[in-house]
Amino acid sequence: MSAGSPTASVTSTPLPEVFRRIGPQMVALDRFMQEQVTSFEPEIRSMAAYCLESSGKRLRPTLVFISGWRGEGVVNDALVRASGVVEMVHLATLVHDDIMDRADLRRNRHTAAREFGPDAAVLLGDALFSQALHVASQFPTTEVCRVVSESTRKVCSGEIMQTLHRRDLTVSREDYWRMIDLKTAELFRVACFLGARLSGFSPEFVQAANDFGRHLGIAYQIYDDLVDFLGEEKSIGKTLGTDLASGKLTLPLMLLLERLSAPERAGLIEALRGGKPLPLTASVERMRALGIADGVALAVDEELARARAVLAPHAALDPVPLMLQLAEMLKSQLSGLYSGAAKP
Amino acid sequence: MSAGSPTASVTSTPLPEVFRRIGPQMVALDRFMQEQVTSFEPEIRSMAAYCLESSGKRLRPTLVFISGWRGEGVVNDALVRASGVVEMVHLATLVHDDIMDRADLRRNRHTAAREFGPDAAVLLGDALFSQALHVASQFPTTEVCRVVSESTRKVCSGEIMQTLHRRDLTVSREDYWRMIDLKTAELFRVACFLGARLSGFSPEFVQAANDFGRHLGIAYQIYDDLVDFLGEEKSIGKTLGTDLASGKLTLPLMLLLERLSAPERAGLIEALRGGKPLPLTASVERMRALGIADGVALAVDEELARARAVLAPHAALDPVPLMLQLAEMLKSQLSGLYSGAAKP
Repeated sequence: MSAGSPTASVTSTPLPEVFRRIGPQMVALDRFMQEQVTSFEPEIRSMAAYCLESSGKRLRPTLVFISGWRGEGVVNDALVRASGVVEMVHLATLVHDDIMDRADLRRNRHTAAREFGPDAAVLLGDALFSQALHVASQFPTTEVCRVVSESTRKVCSGEIMQTLHRRDLTVSREDYWRMIDLKTAELFRVACFLGARLSGFSPEFVQAANDFGRHLGIAYQIYDDLVDFLGEEKSIGKTLGTDLASGKLTLPLMLLLERLSAPERAGLIEALRGGKPLPLTASVERMRALGIADGVALAVDEELARARAVLAPHAALDPVPLMLQLAEMLKSQLSGLYSGAAKP
Repeated sequence: MSAGSPTASVTSTPLPEVFRRIGPQMVALDRFMQEQVTSFEPEIRSMAAYCLESSGKRLRPTLVFISGWRGEGVVNDALVRASGVVEMVHLATLVHDDIMDRADLRRNRHTAAREFGPDAAVLLGDALFSQALHVASQFPTTEVCRVVSESTRKVCSGEIMQTLHRRDLTVSREDYWRMIDLKTAELFRVACFLGARLSGFSPEFVQAANDFGRHLGIAYQIYDDLVDFLGEEKSIGKTLGTDLASGKLTLPLMLLLERLSAPERAGLIEALRGGKPLPLTASVERMRALGIADGVALAVDEELARARAVLAPHAALDPVPLMLQLAEMLKSQLSGLYSGAAKP
C-alpha cells in the first residue's frame, strides 16, 4: 500500500516536537509489540517477530497517543494497547500489499513475501490480523473490537477497489477519494477515535478527533501518492513510481492525464491500457510546468484545512496543539518535497 | 485447505437424522449469511455474496447447533450468529487456501481467486475475516471475539506450518498431528465450545464439547486427507490428490512411504524432493494391499473413540446423542470410502 512507503527521507524538516513528547508512549508501545511475539504459536514466532519489529514511522500509534493526550508523562495502558492493535492491523495490510505489489523491499529490508514466500505471507498477514483483534477483545467492552474489525473491513474494501480499478481510466476524482478514504483514512480515523475515547474525552471531542483523523488520512494518502509518483530519485524520467508501474490511478496521474498534450496523453493511455512501459521522458521541470505538484498541494491543503477546522471548537483541550502540529508537519513535508522537486 | 474439499459425494450413506433435525437452524443461518452481504461496502458486495453463497457442507455451523441443542424447534439467535461467525472464518480461510493451491474450482464453481484474481482474493479473504470478527464483537461480552480471534490465529499458524513443510520428508507423526490440530481441529473445537457455552450448559459440559470438537476435527482432517489422497476417481494411478501434487505430508502419504518397497520409496522421495510428477502407477488394489486405508481408518477410529469418551459423563444431556451421531457419520463415510475403494 502506498500509505506505507518510506517517506521519512524525503523531508529535511527537523522532527517536530510532537514525536519527542510521545517518546515514553512509544517506548511502551515497543515493549508491547515485543511481548506480542510470545502470543504467536512457537512455530511461527520468528516470522511474527520479523513483521512486528518493522521500524516503520508508527504514524497511527502517534495519532492514538496525541488524540488521547493527557499531559507530559501520562502513559495510559489502554492507549498503548489500542495503538498496538491499530499498528498490527496496519502491518498485516502491508504484508498483504507487498504480496500484491510483488515488492521485495520495504524499509530497506526484505518484505515478508520475499523472506518467507508469498503463500506463507498470506497466512502470516492473517495471523497478524487475528492477533490484533485478539488484543482488541481484551478490553473490558466489545467497543474496540467492533470499531477495529469494521475499520479493517473498510480498509480491505478500499484496497479491493483500487486493485480492481488498476489501469481503469474511467476512475473519477470521487472514486479516488472514496478509495483513499477507505484504504487509508479509515485507520487514521479509528486511531484518533480510540485515542480520544479511551482517554475519556467528551463525545463532542471524540467526534472531532474522529473527523480530524479522517481528513488527515486523506491528505496523507494524496501526499504519499505524490511521493510515489515523483519516485525516490525525484526524477520522473528515471524512476517511475510503483503505483504508476502497477497502473494505480492516483491524483498525480489524473492531473498528468488532464494536462499532457494530446499526443503525449494518447501515448500514456495506450501504455496504461496495454500494461506497457510508460512513454514518459518528462523531467521534474516538466512536472512543474504542468503544475502537477501544485495541483496535489492544493488538494492536500484543502483536506488539512478541514482537519484543522473540526478541532477549532476544542482548541483549549490538551490534545489539540499536538494534533495541529502533526497536520503542520505533513504540510511542511509536502513543501519540502515540492521545493526538492524544483531542484533536480 | 483439504478440510474443505468436496466429500459429500463420496458417501452413499443416507443423510443422518442430525441434519434433518437442525433444518430450522440452517434456514436461519442461510438468512443470516444473506443479510451479512449488505454489511460489506457496496463496491465489494457482489464479491462477498459470491463467497458467502457457497453451498458448502456447513459442518462447523452444524457443530455449533448440535453442541448447543436444547430440543426440537428451539432456534437460538446467539447460536445462529456464532455459527455464522465460525463459517465466515472458515470461508475466508478457503478463499486464501485456494490462492495458495492455485485451485480453479471448489464445489463445482470457480474459486474466488479464479473469479476475481488472486490479488483481489487476498483482500476479499481479509474482508471476510474482518466481518466475522465484527459480528463476533456484537455479542454482549468480548468472549466470542476473544475465542474466535485466537482460534483464527491458530488456524493460520497450522496452515503456515504445513506450507513451510511442503516436500519436507522429516515431518513426523507428531508434527502432522500438531498441524491438523491447529489448522482444522481448532475451529471444530471453537464451534462446539460456543454452541454449548451460548446455550448455557454447565462448565463441565462446555469443556467436554470443546474436547469432543477437537478430537472430531482431528479425525475429520485425517479422513479428508485420505479422500484427497485417493482422488476423486478413487484410482490413485489416475487422479492424484492435490495435497500429493503440492507435496503436503499427510498421514496416507506417510504410511505409503513406510510401506512401499525400497526402490518405489526412493522414486517417490526423489519425486517429492524435486517437485517432479510422482512415479506412482499403483492401483487402488495396491493401496489396499499396502493397508494404507486400514492405517488411516485406525487413526480416525482412535480419535473418534476419544471424542465419544469425553461425552460419556454427559450422556443424559440433549446435545450428546446428536454429537455421537455426527461422529458415527464420519465413521460410516470412512467405511464407505474404503469399501468404495475396494471396488475400482
